[in-house]
Amino acid sequence: MAKMLGILGGLGPMSTVYFYEMITRMTQASCDQDHIDMVISSHATTPDRTAYIIGESGMNPLDVMVDDARKLQTYGAEVIAIPCNTAHFFYRQIQDAVTVPVLNIIEETVSAIRAEGVSKVGLLATVGTISTHTYQRVCEREGVGFAVPDNASQQALMRIIYDDIKGGRQADRTRFDAIAQELFDQGCERLILGCTELSIVKSQLSLPADRFTDSLEVLARATIRACGKEVNEDA
Amino acid sequence: MAKMLGILGGLGPMSTVYFYEMITRMTQASCDQDHIDMVISSHATTPDRTAYIIGESGMNPLDVMVDDARKLQTYGAEVIAIPCNTAHFFYRQIQDAVTVPVLNIIEETVSAIRAEGVSKVGLLATVGTISTHTYQRVCEREGVGFAVPDNASQQALMRIIYDDIKGGRQADRTRFDAIAQELFDQGCERLILGCTELSIVKSQLSLPADRFTDSLEVLARATIRACGKEVNEDA
Repeated sequence: MAKMLGILGGLGPMSTVYFYEMITRMTQASCDQDHIDMVISSHATTPDRTAYIIGESGMNPLDVMVDDARKLQTYGAEVIAIPCNTAHFFYRQIQDAVTVPVLNIIEETVSAIRAEGVSKVGLLATVGTISTHTYQRVCEREGVGFAVPDNASQQALMRIIYDDIKGGRQADRTRFDAIAQELFDQGCERLILGCTELSIVKSQLSLPADRFTDSLEVLARATIRACGKEVNEDA
Repeated sequence: MAKMLGILGGLGPMSTVYFYEMITRMTQASCDQDHIDMVISSHATTPDRTAYIIGESGMNPLDVMVDDARKLQTYGAEVIAIPCNTAHFFYRQIQDAVTVPVLNIIEETVSAIRAEGVSKVGLLATVGTISTHTYQRVCEREGVGFAVPDNASQQALMRIIYDDIKGGRQADRTRFDAIAQELFDQGCERLILGCTELSIVKSQLSLPADRFTDSLEVLARATIRACGKEVNEDA
């Protein structure tokens, strides 16, 4: 039986657009009615996650996200997905606030990579995600090696995420390639695109799937299955 | 003061994805928090609108849409938009079911075209929209002449909407061009893309804005303004 999906989104809005598009495109369907019923919270004014985590802002996004999760459940959502890696720093509190399952993009992504036999990954994510060891902890638990960009590269990556993508522009390819190469040079076989804005970069720069794993795409597959539908592998 | 938007969607899902993308892209914003807060109902299993209107199916989509409009208002929506032309056959009942304003894609589109001084339009829409005279009535009231495709062309247009777009494929350009040319030959200065699937066709086939008015884009502009935000004219 198909389940109703709740998307806790707007973190940022364009990433949620992209996730919604991915779910729709990747669901095996031959007419409208074959698709998943969803309710999407696109709560754009949710305080910035990274700014709060690194102490740049005192505005706590957690209360907003917990409230949204509850509202989605009240609306009828039977499964919740959060298309924002950084927000998963608060995963436990969000899951504890509702009785329906909340999918975990970090665990789904590391499991998918581990299943492919990758032994060392490079982590591309926001300062908020990196500094809280969100991915690193799961990699350690799953026995997957990892590397992160150095400080200068991490700052450059934040400019791509905030200035380019959240600002509605194209990603700077030269800047992105330099950051990625640094991690490949350290022996990483695969880079995790661990920020939903980087999923948009993947699409803009046509990054190859055998070198980059898109966390948003992994979440989309897990979400379609959790809602009782099949993934269209040709999409 | 910015207003929270409710999108009554999923009619079909890919059109709602596209409308959400359009609103996000066209809102003047320099960071996530500048965007409109929204709640989106992507109710894919809503019975087919055209099938009900033309009597092919007894499954009435109205009860589902009225219920969704009320749920969106309960969630907090202060303005509601419906990215589906055919569903506007039921506009009055949906508006009557809630106390917040529901934008009307038909009236917004005809007004926008009239303001540009166009005297005769061609109507490209589903059989459901055409047979109920949804656009024709508003054109008559506004003093704008119109023409509709003949029966064979209307059937060909339905194949583009249902088989190509709702089926997840590219629109057949030869077929589309023949339908459009027939209307231009009858003296239509502009064609209304009066079905949200045809907005996707516009994007796929790069149809020129001076020959085709995309009802979904007109609705997106009206929606952004109704929510108290400005339209980014460069987007």
